[in-house]
Amino acid sequence: MSEMLDQEPLFDRLALIGVGLIGSSLARIARAKGTLARRVVVNARTAETLDRARVLDLADEYESDPARAVEGADCVILCAPVGAYAALAARIGPHLAPGAILTDVGSTKQSVVRDVGPFVPEGVHFIPGHPMAGTEFSGPDAGFVELFQNRWCLLTPVAGSDPAAIAKLKLFWQRCGAMVSVMDAAHHDRVVAIVSHLPHLIAFTICGTADDLADETRQEVLQFAASGFRDFTRIAASDPVMWRDIFLNNREALLEMLARFTEDAQAMARAVRWGDAGYIEDKVLRGRKIRKELLDLNQA
Amino acid sequence: MSEMLDQEPLFDRLALIGVGLIGSSLARIARAKGTLARRVVVNARTAETLDRARVLDLADEYESDPARAVEGADCVILCAPVGAYAALAARIGPHLAPGAILTDVGSTKQSVVRDVGPFVPEGVHFIPGHPMAGTEFSGPDAGFVELFQNRWCLLTPVAGSDPAAIAKLKLFWQRCGAMVSVMDAAHHDRVVAIVSHLPHLIAFTICGTADDLADETRQEVLQFAASGFRDFTRIAASDPVMWRDIFLNNREALLEMLARFTEDAQAMARAVRWGDAGYIEDKVLRGRKIRKELLDLNQA
Repeated sequence: MSEMLDQEPLFDRLALIGVGLIGSSLARIARAKGTLARRVVVNARTAETLDRARVLDLADEYESDPARAVEGADCVILCAPVGAYAALAARIGPHLAPGAILTDVGSTKQSVVRDVGPFVPEGVHFIPGHPMAGTEFSGPDAGFVELFQNRWCLLTPVAGSDPAAIAKLKLFWQRCGAMVSVMDAAHHDRVVAIVSHLPHLIAFTICGTADDLADETRQEVLQFAASGFRDFTRIAASDPVMWRDIFLNNREALLEMLARFTEDAQAMARAVRWGDAGYIEDKVLRGRKIRKELLDLNQA
Repeated sequence: MSEMLDQEPLFDRLALIGVGLIGSSLARIARAKGTLARRVVVNARTAETLDRARVLDLADEYESDPARAVEGADCVILCAPVGAYAALAARIGPHLAPGAILTDVGSTKQSVVRDVGPFVPEGVHFIPGHPMAGTEFSGPDAGFVELFQNRWCLLTPVAGSDPAAIAKLKLFWQRCGAMVSVMDAAHHDRVVAIVSHLPHLIAFTICGTADDLADETRQEVLQFAASGFRDFTRIAASDPVMWRDIFLNNREALLEMLARFTEDAQAMARAVRWGDAGYIEDKVLRGRKIRKELLDLNQA
């Protein structure tokens, strides 16, 4: 694409369905850069959130009805928890404009194909997406323009998707600062199960385990929380509805990764019980090696 | 203690047995502040480490024999991996000066009482200690004077310890910037098993689980490592010998905490499998609550 075309907004009317951390970050980028869309309309589930978006001056239009929000939009992005997608898709499907791109930002992708796919009319380009960016904060106030900078956005187009529409959506995310990779939905779900969903499940769990113990030990667990535990609580301080929906919608991959992890943890427990020093040392060295590889990949 | 006494060095001769992250930080503080000891002697297991300490100008004396290092010292601090303590204690025991304080910085405390206790001569004050501070780096170059600032140091004196010696060691750590708490060794080992040792075991393990999977998925696991996994690798990038020794020397408490955690993780897996949304949401909320309590305690 030429330099001149780079200056043109990619879309005429961008509809953001949901305006939490991700949605409000996209709205802010659209307002700040002008190269994503000529107009931005935001929709939120509650009047309170929509009012807040208005106070923050995030968009050109504020629409309480998702069906009206998508009317005439040439790009529609679902930015709600993935558990809400089926109902949203049923509501907006008949109102999607021919030729529009319909995408999303959810952390599970096979569930999105399952829940949204049946409601996509002929002529609408349905390309599920997942920007791998987030913080421990949520809501319209949490967004910021740098959120996607140098982060991956994974696109999982269904078979037979229009290459031009995929290229356009890829450019959209690149203009948001992200790096883009295309893969199939099943592969995506396995990769994120191990790099993101299982770590979150573990973090939520150990916080509960520690909290039970804290009741026995008069708050000392929290008082003396060492660096190990502090990092876990940072991960654990996430949005309950979003994570509930992610776990329930990536069930098979998550349970498989948890089973693999549990086998490995039990092998470590056995090494600790029987004093297998070599085994333990080897596992710690492996952690260091992976850390180094991550640093080399400039992801840390 | 009066202002004037605060200016006096606490000890005449401080012997640091081991000069890694913790030992070299203590040496640096002693040199920088002048209120810990009049002279500092360091000992290291290898000639290479001792030479490095000399190049860094960390101490007044460098001694390759731990028995000679402790001679005439009124404070001796074991700063080696806890697995080395039994042999070290056997070597230095006969050379400890009457009235000296013998302490350590290891992350397990019942094992220290077991391994060091039998070698402590009559008249030497044996007070195990554990400064809860560390980074992902190790060795004499890794130390810095701010390491203990606002971190907890836990002391686990054995029954019948001299209160004056405990008070003096407490002041030592306070002058290093730490907050000090006194508890019994068994209680200490349970608390650190959940706040530090189990999180590390989990982090080492999940890195291995992911690494196995990365072989299958052509590096994508590392490439797309989301924030969840990145935090785990930061924990996992630790010293293999130190952590091997910690796991082997806090065996019972660590295995109990892992068993508790595994029960809780299996309960979460069951909720995911059967779609128990309320259970999952409750656990995520609990993680947030603990995070908030930690922040309130000014530990995060």
